[in-house]
Amino acid sequence: MLLYNSAVSGNCYKVRLLLAQLGLEYQTVELSVVDRSNRADVLGELNPGLRVPTVVLDDGRPLAESNAILWYFGDGTPFAPEDPYERAQVLQWQFFEQYSHEPNIAVARFWLAYSGTPERFEARLPTRMQAGYAALDAMERHLASRTFFVGERYSLADISLYAYTHVAHEGGFELEPYPGIRTWLERVARQPGHIAIDA
Amino acid sequence: MLLYNSAVSGNCYKVRLLLAQLGLEYQTVELSVVDRSNRADVLGELNPGLRVPTVVLDDGRPLAESNAILWYFGDGTPFAPEDPYERAQVLQWQFFEQYSHEPNIAVARFWLAYSGTPERFEARLPTRMQAGYAALDAMERHLASRTFFVGERYSLADISLYAYTHVAHEGGFELEPYPGIRTWLERVARQPGHIAIDA
Repeated sequence: MLLYNSAVSGNCYKVRLLLAQLGLEYQTVELSVVDRSNRADVLGELNPGLRVPTVVLDDGRPLAESNAILWYFGDGTPFAPEDPYERAQVLQWQFFEQYSHEPNIAVARFWLAYSGTPERFEARLPTRMQAGYAALDAMERHLASRTFFVGERYSLADISLYAYTHVAHEGGFELEPYPGIRTWLERVARQPGHIAIDA
Repeated sequence: MLLYNSAVSGNCYKVRLLLAQLGLEYQTVELSVVDRSNRADVLGELNPGLRVPTVVLDDGRPLAESNAILWYFGDGTPFAPEDPYERAQVLQWQFFEQYSHEPNIAVARFWLAYSGTPERFEARLPTRMQAGYAALDAMERHLASRTFFVGERYSLADISLYAYTHVAHEGGFELEPYPGIRTWLERVARQPGHIAIDA
């Protein structure tokens, strides 16, 4: 299996983390998240969104979108619930992650820490910060009385939300006011087979 | 079952369309997409994103995020594939819809047709239009050689992408250059049990 990857992308890290915990082998092709000029050439036939992660299975079939890739490899393993309501809850948190969390926390992190031109994004940053904190508030409320996001067990939902939350400080987010999130981050990092984003 | 609904929201329409095609009964509570001041009071305990659609099942359990709700009701029916790769492809297109399509096409439509204050959003519109057309370009490339998005059968992926594509003109998008999309829209509208967004 081939993973079109970026070492700094939290979306790619989700896939690397699950594959490590499942003990699955793969090769990577590294793409830049700054210079995207080759994306259509490299990913045009593989991923309509032209983004990483994109995987190509051993039989040549491509698959895109980090959370869809997690389900492909994670379904039928202990990382995906069997109960229909819990499965829908995992999806709920993954769609929350892609709609309310990633476009704010990951984008602020990219602008500030990886774009090389943070000054270009200064005017647009406050809106993203405010929406990013709203996402963290929602996570904190949920985690106040829970150990993991769904069913009191580590699942694909935790992998999806851990990816950019644990590096939110690189986007200027302060996690000190979020004790539930901080305890959950430590709990996720203690799971068997856990690897760091820069592993 | 209770559906917190907006009559004009494409995200809510996805749920109403699937429930109609499955023949499932439900009650609705209508929320405004313009005045959102009561959202935390009404949805605070039910949906971390404070958005519609939110459903409350007959046993009182809540579920949020349109595409997660589609899977809860659609899995195990002809609208969700059984093959693991096809299931992941449906998810791929649904995550594409929420990340690359809805934030541009639905948001432009809301600004222009429903906000009541389109002039407030004028400066931000061109970026959303450009990204919305990029999403339509990706859909057109995929549909050029296919009848439906996944497995040559009508599925949850088509419901998800139909919702805002068929009203994209309200956001100022011109579908004339997209013959594949236009034929697919007609094909979806001819499915048994189809209902209109204003049904």
